[in-house]
Amino acid sequence: MILSALLTSVAINLGLCLLFFTLYSILRKQPGNINVYVPRFVAEGKVKEGGQFNLERLLPTAGWVRKAWEPTEDEFLSTSGLDAFVFMRMFVFSLKVFTFGAIIGIVLIPINYMGSQLTDDSDFQHKSLDSFSISNVNNGSNRLWIHFSAAYVFTGVVCYLLYYEYRYISSKRIACFYSSEPQPHHFTVLVRGIPIPPGSTCTDAVQRFFSEYHPSTYLSHSVVRRSSKLHNLITDADKLYKKLTNLKQKNDAPKRQTREGCCGLFGPKVDTVDHYERRLGNIEDNVRMEQSSLASKEVPAAFVSFKTRFGAAIALHIQEGVNPTEWITEEAPEPHDVYWPFFTVSFLKRWISKLVVYVAYTTLTVLFLIPVAIVQGLTHLEQLETFFPFLKGVLRLSVVSQVITGYLPSLILQLFLSYVPPTMIMLSSLQGYISWSQIQKSACTKVLLFTIWNIFFANVLSGSALYRVNIFLEPKNIPRVLAEAVPSQASFFIAYVVTSGWTTIASELFRLSTLISNFLSRTFCKNGDDDFEPPSIPYHSEIPRIRLFGLLGVTYFFLAPLILPFLLIYFCLGYIIFRNQFLKVYVPKFETGGEFWPTVHNSTIFSLILMHVIAIGIFGLKKLPLASALTLPLPILTLLFNEYCQKRFRPIFKNFPAECLIKKDRADEIEHNMSEFYDKMENAYNDPALMPVQYSERFDSQRSPLLHSSQF
Amino acid sequence: MILSALLTSVAINLGLCLLFFTLYSILRKQPGNINVYVPRFVAEGKVKEGGQFNLERLLPTAGWVRKAWEPTEDEFLSTSGLDAFVFMRMFVFSLKVFTFGAIIGIVLIPINYMGSQLTDDSDFQHKSLDSFSISNVNNGSNRLWIHFSAAYVFTGVVCYLLYYEYRYISSKRIACFYSSEPQPHHFTVLVRGIPIPPGSTCTDAVQRFFSEYHPSTYLSHSVVRRSSKLHNLITDADKLYKKLTNLKQKNDAPKRQTREGCCGLFGPKVDTVDHYERRLGNIEDNVRMEQSSLASKEVPAAFVSFKTRFGAAIALHIQEGVNPTEWITEEAPEPHDVYWPFFTVSFLKRWISKLVVYVAYTTLTVLFLIPVAIVQGLTHLEQLETFFPFLKGVLRLSVVSQVITGYLPSLILQLFLSYVPPTMIMLSSLQGYISWSQIQKSACTKVLLFTIWNIFFANVLSGSALYRVNIFLEPKNIPRVLAEAVPSQASFFIAYVVTSGWTTIASELFRLSTLISNFLSRTFCKNGDDDFEPPSIPYHSEIPRIRLFGLLGVTYFFLAPLILPFLLIYFCLGYIIFRNQFLKVYVPKFETGGEFWPTVHNSTIFSLILMHVIAIGIFGLKKLPLASALTLPLPILTLLFNEYCQKRFRPIFKNFPAECLIKKDRADEIEHNMSEFYDKMENAYNDPALMPVQYSERFDSQRSPLLHSSQF
Repeated sequence: MILSALLTSVAINLGLCLLFFTLYSILRKQPGNINVYVPRFVAEGKVKEGGQFNLERLLPTAGWVRKAWEPTEDEFLSTSGLDAFVFMRMFVFSLKVFTFGAIIGIVLIPINYMGSQLTDDSDFQHKSLDSFSISNVNNGSNRLWIHFSAAYVFTGVVCYLLYYEYRYISSKRIACFYSSEPQPHHFTVLVRGIPIPPGSTCTDAVQRFFSEYHPSTYLSHSVVRRSSKLHNLITDADKLYKKLTNLKQKNDAPKRQTREGCCGLFGPKVDTVDHYERRLGNIEDNVRMEQSSLASKEVPAAFVSFKTRFGAAIALHIQEGVNPTEWITEEAPEPHDVYWPFFTVSFLKRWISKLVVYVAYTTLTVLFLIPVAIVQGLTHLEQLETFFPFLKGVLRLSVVSQVITGYLPSLILQLFLSYVPPTMIMLSSLQGYISWSQIQKSACTKVLLFTIWNIFFANVLSGSALYRVNIFLEPKNIPRVLAEAVPSQASFFIAYVVTSGWTTIASELFRLSTLISNFLSRTFCKNGDDDFEPPSIPYHSEIPRIRLFGLLGVTYFFLAPLILPFLLIYFCLGYIIFRNQFLKVYVPKFETGGEFWPTVHNSTIFSLILMHVIAIGIFGLKKLPLASALTLPLPILTLLFNEYCQKRFRPIFKNFPAECLIKKDRADEIEHNMSEFYDKMENAYNDPALMPVQYSERFDSQRSPLLHSSQF
Repeated sequence: MILSALLTSVAINLGLCLLFFTLYSILRKQPGNINVYVPRFVAEGKVKEGGQFNLERLLPTAGWVRKAWEPTEDEFLSTSGLDAFVFMRMFVFSLKVFTFGAIIGIVLIPINYMGSQLTDDSDFQHKSLDSFSISNVNNGSNRLWIHFSAAYVFTGVVCYLLYYEYRYISSKRIACFYSSEPQPHHFTVLVRGIPIPPGSTCTDAVQRFFSEYHPSTYLSHSVVRRSSKLHNLITDADKLYKKLTNLKQKNDAPKRQTREGCCGLFGPKVDTVDHYERRLGNIEDNVRMEQSSLASKEVPAAFVSFKTRFGAAIALHIQEGVNPTEWITEEAPEPHDVYWPFFTVSFLKRWISKLVVYVAYTTLTVLFLIPVAIVQGLTHLEQLETFFPFLKGVLRLSVVSQVITGYLPSLILQLFLSYVPPTMIMLSSLQGYISWSQIQKSACTKVLLFTIWNIFFANVLSGSALYRVNIFLEPKNIPRVLAEAVPSQASFFIAYVVTSGWTTIASELFRLSTLISNFLSRTFCKNGDDDFEPPSIPYHSEIPRIRLFGLLGVTYFFLAPLILPFLLIYFCLGYIIFRNQFLKVYVPKFETGGEFWPTVHNSTIFSLILMHVIAIGIFGLKKLPLASALTLPLPILTLLFNEYCQKRFRPIFKNFPAECLIKKDRADEIEHNMSEFYDKMENAYNDPALMPVQYSERFDSQRSPLLHSSQF
């Protein structure tokens, strides 16, 4: 890629972003779009539809930037929760890192440019981007020592920032814990693998065990039941109920009729409302029948609540039974965060499903590009012509053929990629996690690794999947192979940041798909806000995407520093846009207390190590073996630093220490009416599917009590 | 090696063993040897020296075999403790495994022998041992499927036995816990990294923290002090005191004189007793001075005792302070098991010393054979002649030269190897462990890995250390390289079992070095039993030695089944001899509660995996790629089995579950006078170096109160 081409691409994408921003600043003021652009305010009842038309609504303004910028960190933390706060700290951290990287880059770029390894005699405008990369430095040149020092200094600064950030976020986590209201999940543990003596029930076993061994702190428990069938029924009922409510609201419309048979296509015509009501009644009966039979479908698992947080922690941390596969305790999630449908049963089954998921995940990740390549192969013009002979004429037009060969393959890749986060969520949910937050955390790591493998390594190491796996089976060759392959892809990744990075972040603000679906539903369905649900941020797809740009920045900062200004723009945009989205769009659905930070930390460490490995290879290729050898301590020191951080901070993100728990317990006794809270807690962990259903009599605008279990 | 040579070697070594047994059965009856052969009875006061001479004392008898055989497992457990019991189970387990292996071997040997891959036309007696190994089976022969099935069946049986044994030992561990008296280390945790607020002391900080956060269970604490200098002084004083006692007892001897100056060689002559008494007095003063100054040398660590076992477990398992590097709790060892001298201080220092030890250990293990080879090279005759020209005449004698070239290298290797266990003990003690049992456990693993690398792999993969390390850096090639190298060393290892295995186990019974040193001390020193100390078994050198034979058996069982009968003899001998030694010789110095078993378990799993890898390689080499591919699931299944065992049993070996602790606490309240026990416990963890010393007035036959701290 030459410099002028890059500048063109930058100009086009800047234009696109500006267009998005302008459109956003106009569209967000239209009353019809409040569900798209300020759903959080709608959910919190802060905004109402309507209002007079005025000209100001059609003028693009940048007021939203100021509003997003204004709140302090503490204000942001209190409105959006610690998880959103951690998400934003990821941008702050990246901005700090790459600002420092850019300062180093200002030194490195002239040095690279002064080299003459690549014989590129064209004028400045037609210079290849590689002239600004390390590839242009002469072999054996002493100038490489500057790159060497840059790697050391940069690593030091990044590690310092990582340490600072980990400490800051863990202090915030503790502070949030201290300032929180009493919450059921702090007092509760989930117990699995309950051994039920013959002739007894699970409830009795739990009651007996905890009264025996935790007599002073044990409060109550609720046994889990196998309710996946019931959940399906209730989801059906919910849908039908909504349809029915909509129909009834349109009293003015003429009576609609439908057919009773298969898919509403056959059978005698009946009144739609009657028909739906009858079906709802049927389902309701089924639900009640299922609920009554469910009492006997006990799973040997229970949520056990204690009188104090410390009491729950004791049960959590000390192995309860003699057999470690029985009475397994784990932290209870927030009540509305529990993932009820897949409550796998025995220790062994959960373990096996976990293994199966690992195998499936590895296979999917490693071999993902094979089916993509096959499908992309199908889009060759000749094959299209064979399949659809009538297109022959159209396909011969040069514009059409260019579009198809140029855009279709990448479109197909994007299509396949868009299915990855949901697939990972599915895999994680099969792994036996019991809460949505855990599933998202696990899926986040999965998607992250997937992204690094299938975007970074797949582009760097061209060749078959097997070839790429093979490289990592010969550890000695890794630095050499990477050092050959990575710098040559510098211009591709610079372009990637400008095109993919800037556009996705701008479209995040614009929310095109939501805008369209909102428009369609308003135009055609007109069923109002009844099934309106404020969105929550999909951490599992956003964090990996942003971390990939972090990885690109860290690995390319000394290879091709030209990437850094574009990354800085990306992170600046991201900071403002995501702040705006958190304040106006996304509603937190769960609170992990910043547990996504370790993922960010680890991925940064991985990026650093990757950078070191490439540096070792590069210095070897550039005939400076001494520098190559002297770089060796760098990854080791980084890993030691990481090890230290794991010891110093990781435990805080796993569990709260005794000191905090006891202090908080004592504060609670003074500040809150605990007996009232205990009463509430007793029912907090009842399966929502077991709540009584009364659709038939419930034709008012109240929201379904089941909604919070099926809202994801 | 040919068959007849093996038989000769077997005959010679059998003869040696018989000689050892005969000598043992005579020598053990001599009253002068009771300190060598029944030191345990001496320590327990069951045997007294003396008795009339009679002829029976000179006749070899096998009564000791019956006596070692007779006690039941439970009797053995109650007299020798769980650690010794686990050690013996290792033999029982190996016997079971290799009996089954031998049954399979009976099928495999004829199959191997019927092959014709190795063209060996000599008669039966001169057949190479390789004719009985898998090397002789024809390439691509379908008979190899029998070997394939053997690998599967054998692995299945070993895994079943492993599971059975793990379960059996963990049930014994729990049973021993239930039947134990209240012991201080069950009620105590060691707290390190105590943050001491300015102007306060460690004692105050501990007192305040635990009264605040564990008010109902906290009992007392004793702060650790930096006492290594004091320990050295006291050791000196102890030695001097013993010398002095000996001298005084010999009142009849003429007054001895010594010189006061350097090494007793210069200076004016003085009376020896007076001289020693003066020196002892000096040291004693130093000790007192050091003790008084020690009060201020607090280490930020303390043993904190609780009123219940469960209370201690709570403090142990829940992170105490907000900063995970402060208030770090770990299990307290038994009071006499504490390793006082090296009480490293801060979290960071301990962590760094651990890393340094790992690096030192890895370097030592990988490069151990290099200095050995260099020293062995020095024994070449020509070099010896250059260094010691006067030996020229002697060295030209063919007998001398044969002995030197034949035995000296292996003698040097043995000499170097004999320093390995003490070195590993030293490394482990530098790692910051706080008890002798932990140091031994850690050293045991270190010696085990060292042995496998430097005896198994060094013999199998001939070549430089770097070459061997390189093989493991290319994972794909490992099966091929091992499959080529391992079978060719079969006859070497069969001979190794017969020579090294049988002899070491027989000399274990005979205790040659102790016998000689006892003889010498009785003959020359005549200072009686004053410094007699019953020995304890060095688990860290014995377990790895025995496990190496287990590894040989598992890896060679299907390659060269001829090894199995010799191994069975080894384990039978070992079973009887070690039972005898535990009952009569070794006194348990600490009780880990069978925590050595996981090491045995893991090493067996490692052997199995190694066997599978070799099998994969062998089937590949023998042109049976299908069998090679079908063996692949075997190591995976074995690892999964291991993973399951880790989950199922490992937690029991780490800590006792809440159920046991609470039951035991309640039983104690009924059965024992706990307040009396609490009083005792308060002083249990005082540093023995801080006890008052009074050598000058202590000239009676009482044993030093400090002895239990310096007995190792």
